[in-house]
Amino acid sequence: MLAVAAIRRVTVLGTGLIGTSIALALRRAGIHVALSDRDPGAAAEAVRMGGGVALRPADPPADVVVIATPPSTVVSVLRDAQQRGLGAVYTDVASTKARIVADAERAGCDLGGYVPGHPIAGRELSGPLAARAELFTGRPWAVCPHSATSPAAVRAVIELVALCGAEHRMLAPDVHDRVVAVVSHAPHLISAALAARFAAADDMTLSLVGKGLQDTTRIATGAAGLWSDILEHNADSVAAVLEAVVRDLADAASALRGSARVGPDALADLLARGNRGRRHITGSLPDAA
Amino acid sequence: MLAVAAIRRVTVLGTGLIGTSIALALRRAGIHVALSDRDPGAAAEAVRMGGGVALRPADPPADVVVIATPPSTVVSVLRDAQQRGLGAVYTDVASTKARIVADAERAGCDLGGYVPGHPIAGRELSGPLAARAELFTGRPWAVCPHSATSPAAVRAVIELVALCGAEHRMLAPDVHDRVVAVVSHAPHLISAALAARFAAADDMTLSLVGKGLQDTTRIATGAAGLWSDILEHNADSVAAVLEAVVRDLADAASALRGSARVGPDALADLLARGNRGRRHITGSLPDAA
Repeated sequence: MLAVAAIRRVTVLGTGLIGTSIALALRRAGIHVALSDRDPGAAAEAVRMGGGVALRPADPPADVVVIATPPSTVVSVLRDAQQRGLGAVYTDVASTKARIVADAERAGCDLGGYVPGHPIAGRELSGPLAARAELFTGRPWAVCPHSATSPAAVRAVIELVALCGAEHRMLAPDVHDRVVAVVSHAPHLISAALAARFAAADDMTLSLVGKGLQDTTRIATGAAGLWSDILEHNADSVAAVLEAVVRDLADAASALRGSARVGPDALADLLARGNRGRRHITGSLPDAA
Repeated sequence: MLAVAAIRRVTVLGTGLIGTSIALALRRAGIHVALSDRDPGAAAEAVRMGGGVALRPADPPADVVVIATPPSTVVSVLRDAQQRGLGAVYTDVASTKARIVADAERAGCDLGGYVPGHPIAGRELSGPLAARAELFTGRPWAVCPHSATSPAAVRAVIELVALCGAEHRMLAPDVHDRVVAVVSHAPHLISAALAARFAAADDMTLSLVGKGLQDTTRIATGAAGLWSDILEHNADSVAAVLEAVVRDLADAASALRGSARVGPDALADLLARGNRGRRHITGSLPDAA
């Protein structure tokens, strides 16, 4: 049943930005896509955008079912979908993995047919109207199988990733969570903590805003509700990154206050480490200058 | 002597990114520009780029002398230039103002002819080769006169700002420093503290880097030496912003660790304040989406 030769039918559950973008990418590749959302208006919007047709109860099982709902809902949606026999293989797109996998096991989901996934792509906007077929082009997409996940199911999801134009990266769920904590989740809170300084900013302050602040606070736009959900699902890894940043910034503040608690080179050392880290980040990017 | 009707001759002392960009912008406007740098190679580079001619000892006094050297050198360069009678009006471009004005007064500089300034523009690159005539186009440029500064000198510098295509903003030196601490200096250290997490990053981590991290760490590229100088000149204002960010991030980490020290809404509250601040920042920008 899991021996999917080539993907022909995909069902997408959850037609927000990511789900609808996946649907559009798959439609572009000629795949049959069925769509569903607990909000019928969002599903209808995704259909109108060309993401596929509305899922009907009598539809045959899909080759792959993509669960594109917030992290805290993935396990219940997965269990329900597997009970209804909606597909042969299931994957999700939540940006945390270890707790979802553990919860899915506890909830009695069929782990053999479930391939935890996470496309590393997004926009500041949300909802089906913000979706784009090219959202995943050239982007990494983490594939994080459990030891019980069947190799055939993994192959099917890798094919789905390729159909979306993305590049799959295989890694264990707990490694995934530590990595996204530092590349995505903690940066989101750090950007928010900087942007928060402008929650009551006066006109003179705002008149001197430059491109640097614009860039450093761009991701603070993210929907607060979804992000609370994501962060609580990856709490310890995110907290560890924040604690390291807090130590560096507290030391920098002490150095600026002339405190003897930190050495005279604390500031220069932080700036130099920032330079070094930035070089690594820049070197890792395909569109690096 | 300070009644400059219209600027015809400008001398730029310090031909790095900012000094050379000012020279190029003024040349484009038909102004005679003389250039000097303690590094003769940098001055020659600026001349070759079309920024003007090399300053000669026999040159007549300029209408405005622009001091485009690092913050810690501005006062000595100003005093020396005034003693040599290089111009009628003097301004600088350092991104801190209160300490420079106080030091200039203590050093016996002529405050009547000195107009502290700060163009809010830059690039990640430095040096004369990175200069561009359009660097200041549409950008704010802070003009921060002392109570002793003559109105005619202020008018001359406002004219220079307009010739560079920038928009002047009048504000007191101490207000300026508090504003740039939050819009520029503290963000630089926060970006560095985030980028520093990647100083020893492995390939798997770097393979999952996305646009969000790229943007939040962009300004961490800045030259560490120049930035130490800037930050130490604006130490208390920058420290105050960092301390507020540290409080927010430490609370967020505690909330993620499940500590009873913070309320259950600490995370959602920070994200919501981040959203609100970001809306203000976006609304303030001419190129806002």
